[in-house]
Formats: sequence, C-alpha cells, structure tokens
Amino acid sequence: MNRQELISLIRQRQSFLCVGLDVDKKKMPAHLAEAEDGVFLFNKAIIDATIDYTVAYKPNLAFYEAMGIEGLVQLKKTMDYLHSIDKPAFTIADAKRGDIGNTSQQYAKAFLDPAGDFNFDALTIAPYMGADSVQPFTVFDNKWVILLALTSNKGAFDFQFLPVEGDKKLFEKVLDTSKQWGNKENMMYVVGATKADMLTQVRAIVPDSFLLVPGVGAQGGSLEEVCRYGLTRDCGLLVNSSRGIIYASNGPDFAERAAEEASKLQQQMAAALQQ
Amino acid sequence: MNRQELISLIRQRQSFLCVGLDVDKKKMPAHLAEAEDGVFLFNKAIIDATIDYTVAYKPNLAFYEAMGIEGLVQLKKTMDYLHSIDKPAFTIADAKRGDIGNTSQQYAKAFLDPAGDFNFDALTIAPYMGADSVQPFTVFDNKWVILLALTSNKGAFDFQFLPVEGDKKLFEKVLDTSKQWGNKENMMYVVGATKADMLTQVRAIVPDSFLLVPGVGAQGGSLEEVCRYGLTRDCGLLVNSSRGIIYASNGPDFAERAAEEASKLQQQMAAALQQ
Repeated sequence: MNRQELISLIRQRQSFLCVGLDVDKKKMPAHLAEAEDGVFLFNKAIIDATIDYTVAYKPNLAFYEAMGIEGLVQLKKTMDYLHSIDKPAFTIADAKRGDIGNTSQQYAKAFLDPAGDFNFDALTIAPYMGADSVQPFTVFDNKWVILLALTSNKGAFDFQFLPVEGDKKLFEKVLDTSKQWGNKENMMYVVGATKADMLTQVRAIVPDSFLLVPGVGAQGGSLEEVCRYGLTRDCGLLVNSSRGIIYASNGPDFAERAAEEASKLQQQMAAALQQ
Repeated sequence: MNRQELISLIRQRQSFLCVGLDVDKKKMPAHLAEAEDGVFLFNKAIIDATIDYTVAYKPNLAFYEAMGIEGLVQLKKTMDYLHSIDKPAFTIADAKRGDIGNTSQQYAKAFLDPAGDFNFDALTIAPYMGADSVQPFTVFDNKWVILLALTSNKGAFDFQFLPVEGDKKLFEKVLDTSKQWGNKENMMYVVGATKADMLTQVRAIVPDSFLLVPGVGAQGGSLEEVCRYGLTRDCGLLVNSSRGIIYASNGPDFAERAAEEASKLQQQMAAALQQ
C-alpha cells in the first residue's frame, strides 16, 4: 500500500487506528486458546469486529515466535486472511529487525516480499547498525520501513535521549540521518505516545512523515496529546492500541468488546481529523 | 551452557571458533538446495565436518525466516540435531531482537526457553531500546544475552561512534550501561573484527566478558589482530566465520572443504591460546 492509498483509507474510515495483534494464549478466551487454529480464529474475529474502525493491523512477531513454529503458521493464516478480504488494511510486522546489509536483505525477503509467506506492507527496524542495515528494506515498491526513533518504554531513556551533537539527542540524530536512506513515501518512524511532548521536536525534523505511535492505553499515552503535537495535513499518524482492544474482554464477548473499544478510538480520531 | 563449561570446551578443543550457519539455497550445493530437508542436511553435514574444530554454531535467523515457515522447520531440525549428538556446542541465535519488556519476554521464551522449539544457549540483542528490552533475556539459568556493541558493518559508523559523554562514544556507553543489566556469566558483546583496533577500548570497560567477533574472513577482519587485542586469560572470545567455511565449496566436497577451513582457523586459534 502506498502513501496515497493509506491517506485515502484514513479519510474513508475516518480513523488512523492500528490494532496490535499481540496474541497471548494466556490472555485470550479459553475456548480459543485450546482450539485448533485458535490464534488465527482469535485474530480473525478481532479483524472482522474492528476493521471498519481501523486502517492497520500490527502483529508483534515476538508473540508468534514464542509459540514456536506453530505460532508462525497462525500468523501466516492471519496474513492470508487479511489479504483475502475485500476491505483493505495496512499491515505492519512489528519485528524490530536490522542486521548487516546482506542479512537485512534476507529479513526484507522474509517479511515484505510479495512472493513470501507473509507479504506485509511494512516492517519495524532498529537503527543501531546504521545505513546498510536499513536500506535493503526500501527496495520493494509500495513497502515501508518503520524505523525506531523514540520508543514508548522506560529503557528509551538509557540511550535515545543522550546528547550526541551539541543539543541534538540520539533519537533526533537517527531521524536526521535516516532522511538519507528513505523518504516520506517509504519510511515511517516509531514515536511512543508516552513521550508525546517530544513530537514537536520529531515534527521539526520529519514534518510530513507518517509516525507509528504505540503506547496509547495500557502503556499510559494520551491520544489527545499525540494528535495535538503529531497530526499533519495528511494525518501523518498511525496510533496503535493492542491490549486495550484485543483483551477488552476474555469472555465470549471478546470480539464485541474489541469493536466497542476500537469504535471509541475511531470516534476520537474522526473528531481530531475534522479539526 | 555456563561460562565455566564454555571455557572448558574451548580448552579441550583448542578452539574458539563459531561457525555461522547462514544458509542460503543459492549458495549451497544444488543437490541439497533441491532436496527435501536440504537445509537441515546441509547444516548436519557442516556440523559433522566441523564440530571437532568448533565450539559454537550461530544460525542467523534472517536466512531461515527468508525461506518462510519451512526455513524455521529446518532450523528446528538443526537445533534438535545439535542437542542430540554427544559432542557439545554453544548455540547462538543471531536474531538481533529487542523490544519493550513484556515483548522481550516473549522473544526470550521463543529462543532460550528449554521447553521451546529451539532452546539456544544465547541470543543477540540490539541495545537501542535500553534496560527493559534486554533484562528479560537474563532470566534463564545458564543462558546468555549477546548485546550489540560495535558491529562489523559500515553502518556502524552512523551512530555507534557518536560521542555521547565527553569523549565517550555510544558503543562505550552501551557497554558501560549494560553492566547494570548483566555480568560476565550471562552477557557477551558483539564486537566486529573489522574494528579490531577498538578492542582495547572495549576491554577497558568489559575486561573479562566474552566477545562474539564476526567479520573475520568475508568481511575482511583479521584473526591475528582480534587475538592481539581481545584474548583474555579465560580466552574471552568467540570468533565467527560464516561464508568462509560453509561456502568454501558448493560442490559435493563442500563438507570436506568446510572442515579444512575450520581446521585452519582452529590451528591458528590453538597457537593463540598457547601464547
């Protein structure tokens, strides 16, 4: 999905919500946790219930890998389902990969290649290894790198805020340098909602780029603040919620409750888009 | 495998060689690339041919993920084989993971959990997200985090050498800070052989820790220099070679040629250990 298609989808659904499919058998309804293909069936029910309020889905690879090879089979079924339905959605492999050039090429093939098992639109990438660890992900048409800039966790303060050039902080240097590797058509950035007050600094460096914003909900970030500092004329935001939606209930009403939570966020987003 | 067992294995085999199992169907012998379980059979042949000269094996996850779910099946068979033979080897998932705390827990489960599909001894981790992205990997007994400090690629110069506190560079700050998260019994560091002259600075911060050193061979690093600046009383090094060993030939003699190349490196290592 290219930038223009993503912007159109956001306008059409009046939403910039991304639903994080971080599936954990301990937290999902027991009847599905024990069922054959239960993880896929859980995801399918969540997708069916939320897609009218949502423009993107973001499975975090860790949760699938933790289930072993069977977890990846469930992820593939989920992706096949998303590709089969007539309502489009932007798909993000939250995988936080990145390695030397010839190895990043292999990761790009694994996640973004249209001929591969998954065929995601985008992949999250850690910046520590620099240019050649990031650039191989920009070779596929209409596919995206989502580079970690400022993450939502406490550990973000260990390195990301270190001053590296005068007053410039490491995350600002990462944003700055990355503009040599990609552009607003193939690169987005992770900026945690828990650090929404930093969005002004982020926007000073990447005024038009899309930002993937995790941390609203369970991690404590505020949607209102994210919109205040992060929204652009083209929206420019994908705001993720995982646990707050997919585990709104662990009873038989889990999909209905997920729809309610997604719908609430969508209404707030529609209001923000109209301002 | 704990530190003492690893040191004993190094003394016994007179080697600190790690063989990188970065399997690419385009580079392996054609009769195996096309065979059922060909990737596993290739790895098995390489392991059988090299284990007397080697203390560690390091599959890079990217190469398996690029083959889709079938690649992970081949990796599991490889790990099952390594666990089944009576000659021990230290096993490293070169996966460069790292995410917020609850997600890193899932990656730890995926790769290090003895009850999981893979049961590696160690996992490579990217430091950008800080403390809570790394600490979940230190919960399993006798398992290891291998933190990226100074990587072997050109992109390492984008961020890792930035001065962050006076003269201190980012990679030195990473080493320094990580000492709050682990110790020489559960944490190693990636330091590229292409930057062997930096090993003196690395050893000033982590004098006794094991270093995983990629970049000897195809990437241009020198084993002699790595030994000069990196060896400790307990060895303290695992030096990786991937392409130089596993693709020494792509003919029917590939395993023999891999053994020759591994043996050459082992002899140089034995000499270095005796100095």
